[in-house]
Order: sequence, then C-alpha cells, then structure tokens
Amino acid sequence: MDIGIVGGSGYGGAELLRLLAHHPTFKVRTVAAGSQAGRRLDEVWPHLGRDDLLVAAEAGAYLGCALVFLATPHGVSAELAPALIEAGCHVVDLSGAFRLSADDFEAWYGEPHPAARLTPAPYGLPELFGDDLPGAPLVAGPGCYPTAALLALAPLAGLVDPATVVVTGMSGTSGAGAGLRAELHVSHAMNNLGAYGAPRHRHTPEIEGHWAALTGTPAPVTFTPHLVPMPRGLVCTVTAKLLDGDRGEGVHEAYRDRYAGEPFVTVLDQGEWPQTAHVLGANSARIGVAVDARSGRVTASCAIDNLVKGAAGQALQAANIVAGVDETAGLPTVAVYP
Amino acid sequence: MDIGIVGGSGYGGAELLRLLAHHPTFKVRTVAAGSQAGRRLDEVWPHLGRDDLLVAAEAGAYLGCALVFLATPHGVSAELAPALIEAGCHVVDLSGAFRLSADDFEAWYGEPHPAARLTPAPYGLPELFGDDLPGAPLVAGPGCYPTAALLALAPLAGLVDPATVVVTGMSGTSGAGAGLRAELHVSHAMNNLGAYGAPRHRHTPEIEGHWAALTGTPAPVTFTPHLVPMPRGLVCTVTAKLLDGDRGEGVHEAYRDRYAGEPFVTVLDQGEWPQTAHVLGANSARIGVAVDARSGRVTASCAIDNLVKGAAGQALQAANIVAGVDETAGLPTVAVYP
Amino acid sequence: MDIGIVGGSGYGGAELLRLLAHHPTFKVRTVAAGSQAGRRLDEVWPHLGRDDLLVAAEAGAYLGCALVFLATPHGVSAELAPALIEAGCHVVDLSGAFRLSADDFEAWYGEPHPAARLTPAPYGLPELFGDDLPGAPLVAGPGCYPTAALLALAPLAGLVDPATVVVTGMSGTSGAGAGLRAELHVSHAMNNLGAYGAPRHRHTPEIEGHWAALTGTPAPVTFTPHLVPMPRGLVCTVTAKLLDGDRGEGVHEAYRDRYAGEPFVTVLDQGEWPQTAHVLGANSARIGVAVDARSGRVTASCAIDNLVKGAAGQALQAANIVAGVDETAGLPTVAVYP
Amino acid sequence: MDIGIVGGSGYGGAELLRLLAHHPTFKVRTVAAGSQAGRRLDEVWPHLGRDDLLVAAEAGAYLGCALVFLATPHGVSAELAPALIEAGCHVVDLSGAFRLSADDFEAWYGEPHPAARLTPAPYGLPELFGDDLPGAPLVAGPGCYPTAALLALAPLAGLVDPATVVVTGMSGTSGAGAGLRAELHVSHAMNNLGAYGAPRHRHTPEIEGHWAALTGTPAPVTFTPHLVPMPRGLVCTVTAKLLDGDRGEGVHEAYRDRYAGEPFVTVLDQGEWPQTAHVLGANSARIGVAVDARSGRVTASCAIDNLVKGAAGQALQAANIVAGVDETAGLPTVAVYP
Repeated sequence: MDIGIVGGSGYGGAELLRLLAHHPTFKVRTVAAGSQAGRRLDEVWPHLGRDDLLVAAEAGAYLGCALVFLATPHGVSAELAPALIEAGCHVVDLSGAFRLSADDFEAWYGEPHPAARLTPAPYGLPELFGDDLPGAPLVAGPGCYPTAALLALAPLAGLVDPATVVVTGMSGTSGAGAGLRAELHVSHAMNNLGAYGAPRHRHTPEIEGHWAALTGTPAPVTFTPHLVPMPRGLVCTVTAKLLDGDRGEGVHEAYRDRYAGEPFVTVLDQGEWPQTAHVLGANSARIGVAVDARSGRVTASCAIDNLVKGAAGQALQAANIVAGVDETAGLPTVAVYP
Repeated sequence: MDIGIVGGSGYGGAELLRLLAHHPTFKVRTVAAGSQAGRRLDEVWPHLGRDDLLVAAEAGAYLGCALVFLATPHGVSAELAPALIEAGCHVVDLSGAFRLSADDFEAWYGEPHPAARLTPAPYGLPELFGDDLPGAPLVAGPGCYPTAALLALAPLAGLVDPATVVVTGMSGTSGAGAGLRAELHVSHAMNNLGAYGAPRHRHTPEIEGHWAALTGTPAPVTFTPHLVPMPRGLVCTVTAKLLDGDRGEGVHEAYRDRYAGEPFVTVLDQGEWPQTAHVLGANSARIGVAVDARSGRVTASCAIDNLVKGAAGQALQAANIVAGVDETAGLPTVAVYP
Repeated sequence: MDIGIVGGSGYGGAELLRLLAHHPTFKVRTVAAGSQAGRRLDEVWPHLGRDDLLVAAEAGAYLGCALVFLATPHGVSAELAPALIEAGCHVVDLSGAFRLSADDFEAWYGEPHPAARLTPAPYGLPELFGDDLPGAPLVAGPGCYPTAALLALAPLAGLVDPATVVVTGMSGTSGAGAGLRAELHVSHAMNNLGAYGAPRHRHTPEIEGHWAALTGTPAPVTFTPHLVPMPRGLVCTVTAKLLDGDRGEGVHEAYRDRYAGEPFVTVLDQGEWPQTAHVLGANSARIGVAVDARSGRVTASCAIDNLVKGAAGQALQAANIVAGVDETAGLPTVAVYP
Repeated sequence: MDIGIVGGSGYGGAELLRLLAHHPTFKVRTVAAGSQAGRRLDEVWPHLGRDDLLVAAEAGAYLGCALVFLATPHGVSAELAPALIEAGCHVVDLSGAFRLSADDFEAWYGEPHPAARLTPAPYGLPELFGDDLPGAPLVAGPGCYPTAALLALAPLAGLVDPATVVVTGMSGTSGAGAGLRAELHVSHAMNNLGAYGAPRHRHTPEIEGHWAALTGTPAPVTFTPHLVPMPRGLVCTVTAKLLDGDRGEGVHEAYRDRYAGEPFVTVLDQGEWPQTAHVLGANSARIGVAVDARSGRVTASCAIDNLVKGAAGQALQAANIVAGVDETAGLPTVAVYP
C-alpha cells in the first residue's frame, strides 16, 4: 500500500519515516517538504539511512498514494487536505487543523477555519475514539499533551466533577519542533525548566472538547505546559475532585478495566508512577493513578514519547485502523532504555 | 561570629559551605558529619577548596558557635537541636523535623515527634513569615517545594477559594539527596521524567499548614512532585479558583505589591513564566502569574534553585535575620547562566 | 532457534532482549540473572514488555539452546563458557573474558586466565574479523571503545606508523553499567565530564592487540577514556602519523573502499565528523576522517551506540554469522532521533 | 576604577558582568552591544539582576573607562582596540584577534590582520605568561581550549618531544556561543557528542605557538575538539612522548612544582583525573597527569569552566594584573556543585 508523507523535514515526518521503515504493508512512496524540497533525505536526516529526494509539497505528488500523512503546520494541512481527499487519498493529519470545531478553531487560532466543513475530523486517539476511524477519509491526529491528558482522564468520566480538572503538562524539547528559536538554543534549554503558553495554549480546547465528549458535560480545563530538558518524553499529570460521596475505591479498577486488552496502554500497580524513560521510542502509554481520600481528589499521570504515541506513532496506529490492517503493525512497544 | 554546620557531607551542608565562603561576618568554625566524619573536606567535596576535617556530629563540637545549621535527616535534627539550644546556640534546621505541629508530624512521619515541645518552630521563609525570626532560638527551614509553592500562593490569599489549590512540583535531581539509589543512577534519571511520592509526600502538610496560616482557612492541598533531569532547579506551578465574582483584574498587581522591596523575589511581567536557568546558584525566586477568565482560575509558577532559595540559601537568609545582620549578607542574586 | 541470555539484569542483557524482540529466527527461551534471579522481567525492565521470570544462571538452564549470550562479568563468563560449549551451545560473550591472550589477560586483569585454552576466542567484530566467526563455538564480543577505535583505525593499516596511535574515547554513562557507584549518581554525572581509568583501562590491550593483528606490527597505543553526560553513545577519535612520504591523498578513499558494502558502517564525506545522535538505538557506525598535511597526521573519528554496535547489537551481528543467518537480521539501522 | 564591556549580549560579556558584580574595585560603567543595543540588560539576561541599557558599541562610549573588555567577534575587536588604546584605555580582548602573529592570523583566518602592529599582544594566561601583563595596554585573552591545553602541557616542556603532542578537546555547548545554528538546537545537541572543526580549528595555531614559546621548538600540534552535551565545562586531554631515556619519574612532581602557589590551579594526586563538575562557575583549573611507562608517553588532562577560566574569568584575572590589583579579586574558586 503506497504511502505519502508531507512535512518530511520536521520531526513528525522524520519519526513517521523511522516507524514506516518496519511496517509490513505500508510502503513510503513520496516524501514532500517545503523549504527543504530538493534535498536528499540523508542530508536532512542522517539517522534514517535513506537517500531519496524530498519533493515539493504539491497535491499532485501523491497521485497513487492510498494514504497520506500530513506532518505540516495547520495552515498547510488545511490547504492540502481537501484536494488529497478529493483525489481519493485517505489523510491522517498530525497538525491542529482538524481537531477542533470551526468555532473553537476560530476562538483559539484567531482566524476563521480555512476548511470548516472538514472539521472536527474523527479524532485519532484509538483507545478512546477508535470507532470513528475505520475507512475515515480524514483523521485528526491528537496533540501530544491531549493524548497523555485524555488517556489519564478517560477512566474518570462519571467518577469526578468534570469542572475540577487541572492538567499539568511536561514535555521534552522535541515537542517544540525543529525550528530555530532563542528559547531552544541548547545552552539555554538544557538544564532549564519552566512553564510556557498558559493559559492560552492551543491544546487546552482540544483537551476540553474531548473530555466533554467523554463526560457529556462541557467544562473548562486548566492546562499548564512546561518545557523539560530532555529531547523526548512527555508527562501529563491530571487531578480532579471525586463526585460527592465517592471514596475512590473503584478508581484503580476503572483504569484497569478501561484499558484491558489495549496493546499500547499499561496501567501501573497502585503506588507506582510512570516514567518517560520506559516509553522512549515506543508507542506506549504508561499510567499511574492514586486517590487521596483526605482531599477527595484523584490524581493520574500518563507518560508517553511525544513523538511516537504523542504524534507519529499514534498517527500510524490510526492509519492502520483506517486501512483495516492490524492496529499494531509497524509500532514498537519495546522502548530504548536507558 | 562563629558558625557550625552539621551534615557537611550532604548537598545542603556543602551548599551552606559554598555560600558562607563569601559571608562578611559568619565564619565557619566546625563542620560535622556522620559516616564521613574524619575525612578531609576536599576529599568529599573537591569543589569547595577547603581541606579541614569533618568532625563527628556531637553537640559538644559546637561549643562557642553562636549559630549552628543542621543539614541532617529529621531524626538527627530532632536529637541534636534541644542540646544545642540549651548550650546557647541558635539553630537553623534544614530538615522536616520542626516544620509541622506534633500532630501533623505524627500523621505524616508515622512516629511521635521526638521533641514535641519545640515544634512547630518559627518558619524560615522570610518573605512570608519573617517577623518570627529575629532572635529565634530555633528556625525550621522550609522544604524546597513548599518554598516555591508558598511564594506562588501567598498573594492569592483572600482572592481564591483555599480548598481548590492544586500544586504541581518539578525538581532537579539534587533535591533527592546525595545517597545512592537505583532511581538516581545517572543512566536511569538523565533524560527521564516522572511523578513520585504523591499523594503522601511529606511536603504536602507543610504547604497546607502554611497556606492555612496565610488564609486563615485550613483546607487540603493536592500536591504532586516530579523528578526532572537536571541537577538543580525547581518549579512549583499552582492553580486555584478565584472567589465568586472576582474577575482577577487585581491579581498581577497583588503579586507586585506583595513582593515590592523583597531583594530575592522578582514578579515577572504579565504573559511571562519563570525559568530555572535564571536562578541557578542564586537565592532568587522568580514568579509568573496569569488569570484565565474563561475558567475563573488563576495559575502562578515560581522557579527557584532548590539548593539555594529552596534550602541552604534560605537557611542563611533566615540566619541573617536571627542574628540581626543584613538579610542579604552572603547571598548571591546573580545566577550562573547558561 | 532457541536462544539463552545470561546476565538479563544488566544493560547488555536488556539490550539483547530489546533487539531479539524483532529477530526473525532467534527466539529467547531462557533469561538468567545473578542476584535478580526469581524476579519478573517487567519488574526489572519495565521498558521491555515481558513478564517472564529471570532464572538462576546455571549451565543446565540452557539445555536445548543453540546459542547463549553471556552478558556477565568476565569471571562469570569464564566459568560458564566451557560448560556451555561442552553442552553443545554456541557462546557469544560480551565480557572481556576471551578478548586477550592468556598472557595479556594476566597482565591487565592481575590474575591467571581461568579458562586459558579458550582465549583468545574469535573476535566478534565482523567488519574486520568476520571470517573467523561462521560456526565458531565461542566468540569474544568486542568492548565498546575497541569497536569504535578499531573501525576508525583499520583503514589506516599500512598508511601510518603503528607506534604513533593515540586514541581518545568518550562514552555515555550506560557504558559504566547499571551498578550503583558514587560517580554514577545522577546529580554528579549529569553535566559532568572527565577522563578516567587511563593509562590502565582494560580496553587498551584489546585495541593494541587487534591493531597489531591488522598491521602486523605490535606497538603500544595510548588510550584515554572519558565519561560524557548522556545515557548512550560513544565516540573514539584516533590519530596517527602518516608514513614518511605519504601525503594522505588516498586516505579518504581507503575508508570508502574498506567499508564498501558494509551494511552497518557509513564513511562520511570529507570535512564531516560523526555524531552519536545519528546512531542511537541502531547498530550503525559512522566514521569521519581528515588528513592534516601540515602535521603529517591523520585523524579519524567513529560514533556508535555503545549498547548496540558497542555491545549487544554487535554480539547479535556476530551470532547471526555464527548461526549462518543473514548478518543484519534483527538489527536496526534507523536511529532514534532526536 | 571604571570599566567598560563591549559585547554585552554574548556569553562572554554576560559572564564578565556576573563576575564583576562582586569585584571590590572594578565598577562597570558602560556595557555596549551590537544588534541588541538599546535593550535593557534584564531583558537580554534575566539572570544578572541589572536593568541598565546596552549602548551602541562606539569607542566614544568608553571615555573615562580605565579598562575595557572586548567580548566581541575578532573583526570588531580588531577595529575597536586601536582607538580605545589611543584614548588611554587598557584593553583586554576575549576574541582571537590578537593571539597570533600577523602571519599566522592570515594563514588561519584567511585575511590579512586588520591591525597587524598590535598582534600578537601579551597573552593573558597569567600562570604561564603573566610577566608580560602588568600595565599592558592590550591583552589577548586566550581561547578556551588553548587555556586548558597549555596548562596541561606547560610542565612537560623539556620532558617530552614537542613534535608528538596530541590534544583532544571536549567542550560544553556555551563555548559555541549564543547565536542560533541548527547544530545548537537543543533537541539535536542535547544527548549528542561529536568532533568538529578539525584539523583547521583556529585554536590549533594558538596552542602551537604558545607551546613553542614554552619549549623553544616550533612543532605542529594535532588538535581535535568535540562538542559535549552540557552547558558549561571543558576538558583538554593531552599526550606526548617522553624524551628518550626519560622514564617519567619526575613528571608528577614537575606539575606540583610548576603550579605551586597558583591560586587557581590544582594538581590532583596521582591516579586521579579532573572533572568539570568541580570547577563550574569558578576560575579554577584542575589537572591530572599519568605516565605510561609501557608506551613511554605521558597523558595530562585539564578541566576548566570554559566561560570562566576559559574566557571571562581569565580575562578578569589578567585585567587585575594589568591594573595592579590582587590577581584573585572578584574571582570565585568555589564551584557550584552539583
């Protein structure tokens, strides 16, 4: 099955190429890029061991591809997706272009949605919203923070007051992309830690909207992301107030039940918290949860690799489901440690 | 003025020695240690440039010291403090021995307080509780997380519902001490991130108790600490719900007012968040705050060096006040960057 | 084909398990350990996603295994290898037990070789000594530094004065093993850099002996290793004096020729130097070389992942050859970047 | 004594400001910058706690300054220095402008020296060339690698064959400056290690020339620098062949003798190697040395903080000598650890 990738010069595109190198049925046919078009892949990404050319990102380049991944800025994704769908390609988008309703998009991005009738697309978080994916022409790949936050929150739907959710995100630096910016200079960012973007980070409405879909009760979520000095890895720690009278006895069991049989999610034993070192390079999510009877709150924490389960791996997982192949095809569950 | 240090082989003791090397009036006379007693300081701490001997940690060693810092485990501190006070020394303790009421101590440490009549001691967080310090025979140096959490929370007293406070802590590895443990092996902890200790971390009641002292309204606080891959630096990000009807207009001004004239606290401009890189090695705290009108919550974040403002620096700041010398004596405000 | 691993609780054993998870024909049947025997693998190595038990390291445990990897200290390897070979297993050893002649072993390890008739075993560096491997009952897997040093040096045989070789090694921390030691405490080793072990590091005679095998001229090599603050990755930079009259014109071509067709070695263009980030998790070696006509010296630098091409990956590569399967089976060439 | 700094927006200038904050007699009067002129210092460097303006880098700005530090690119330094000297300022330059003879400059920089009559200026490495500094109108502050290399080499003058010197440099990332470049993107450079710049790095002739000054015998030096994933810290490990017949008995003593009484240099005990963690933030150099009787070579390794003893600290040390104040004024010897 022929596959196209747009955005081959970003981290998301590179990670798709890493994973697809081991996919049993998807074959990468075309890799496009913007400003890097015309360069050889081994010049841009020496770690991939490929020397084909990056082509220009025009829709015509994908003729014959059954499925195209867009690892592009949201504006580019919104422009390319309609033409690709029209040409018969399935599209899995890794950007924020199709994750929100048109209204929410306008409120958080400050511009009308450029392809409003396509948004929100089916949300490519298979463990929670996988039923919408088989055969879907367009999938909105979740953001890295929303992936970890929603996996940590989902089993709490019905157990907590939806309006009391606080999410703290902590991400390795690759989540900030490959572009050059002063705050990503190595001498500044290594050894450094701090919050950023709150309270207007664009992953906020994405978490809120899908949490509301799980609870049926729209409510604001407080989300604060932090940049952490490591290249990969992401943790979201969430907390919410148990419903009145709930003492939390069933909480850990609810997590175990929710994710029973899921190949990529591990619920840790009580008293354990997940660490990113155990998921690096893998499409895994590890979740710990604890009830604080004293305060009536529950806290859950989810660790993922932001480029795999938080981006390219999850996009591939969704693409597998779209295409009707094994959900786990091409996706590592063994991490690179230490 | 002659100074003693007990616990010279831990990070807290070493950091006290670093800072006291530049103090105008405090002179270190005796440095004691437990298992390392008898070794030369330059063997244990090559970075200090001192070759005097670590002596055994017996109270008699401090005869003639006007003030003694205890950078020891809480059990040792509780044992040594009474004798030192009796001998006429002022004591500044960096452990958790004297931060909680005897009841809270028993509830969180699982043992009766070994010196109940001395606890809680005046709390050595000068910006918030400095009035209790001049001349105090015993000071309880705050924990690293409580320092950052309480500096971030204090201006919110009266503005938020005290029962809605969520604190997320993120600390560099030196906060976990110099002892050898599998989770502190460099190949495991470098490049790694994860929560730990929640919801029973012993800094929880310390934050709660002093937050209650600021608001007058005891209420549980949800606190989750995380270990971050860098040697030094700590952030606490706190959030709470504004009181009904409060729209948060005065929040930033409240921070500016609260810390006006404080030599060690900087309140950032609106829209900025603090980073640990700007406080490394310094006794500084940097605080950012933002109101989210949408959710009616306020979020504040405070960055410190966990070994300076979070431990040894703050202990020295408190000691300066105890001894009646300039609060800033010997304390750097210029950080080592990058 | 059934495979055994002894030393499943060390980094070498864990990395073998990671790689073998994707091997087409080798199936891990038994994993043994020393002090960790009896524990479940997912307790010891949460990243592997296996929950079988670690068994005790007795030779009998390997009945039925066609090949056994020893990822054990040299003393244990020397004790186990003879019995395993007698039982008909092929053995690939990752320790230093069988890399040196019995005389050199005694000189550098300070003890007589405990199984002298087996040493030196065929040396498992396939690009340089692969002819000795097919069917070999015992293979000595090379050390991490010697792998990088010898790959960088080999094309210089015949071009340089063998007695002028200087090797500088720089390794990530996993090369120092998983044991707890003060110098591997994360707060000490992160952000830190320094030499160690010279001039008596045990990889010195291993480099020397195999360099002599390549040149035919025994000569001492100066080798100084350094510990670098990253979990994985290793560089050896070597330099030697060109033979009198040689102006170095053919040097780069000699590297290209030497490694033409090798699936795991990339010789960079002139003017480029290799970086460990491009080989992390992969069995790749990347080599750069430059001639300094001014000084008449040539410098080459080789980057590998110390746990893959420097240990477990290379052991698996050798095992593939021993067993007569495709040399590249189960071995990744795409790295995990960034 | 009024001091000027040009280049206040680079790491060298920022580090001068950090150190001068504690200098007893030097008072910073004017800080100039290029593209950042007009900004407040606390916007550019939040860690310094200063809010004065960066002015434009024109010579007139320094009227009244007794001494000016140039922490500027070599072209700017070469342009500003003559005018400043003419105006009566002493100048300490941190760039490469005045370290080489005019001929060597042209050979390595590819352009004629723009102020040939001023170069080479007295070399500001006080432990080796301090006699030239008192009252000097212009001082060439040494490069970071040459500082460590020459401190490691100097005691070997007369003991080794000058033509056999190999220097391997390893530096933290701040040595590469604050400018944005792809290879300094945090996600690329953190966790990464590799050689660069050899064999044409401009510190090569600087090491060679001053090593020749110490031995009296010009000879090429082989120098290969590497970038190491930590913000600060630098090691040079040097090796050379002992003179025929020398068995190295006196080598360690030669180091002890050479640096006896030097406040900033520590020679370690035999068998020990220096680590950068012990010098971070301090103007210290720590040196280890070992003779390998087997190969007849000696290896020495020197660890410094590249921004302190390798740049701003050493410039201040030289300035102290130029100005006739205590050589150690304002210079920390206690490091920030861990």
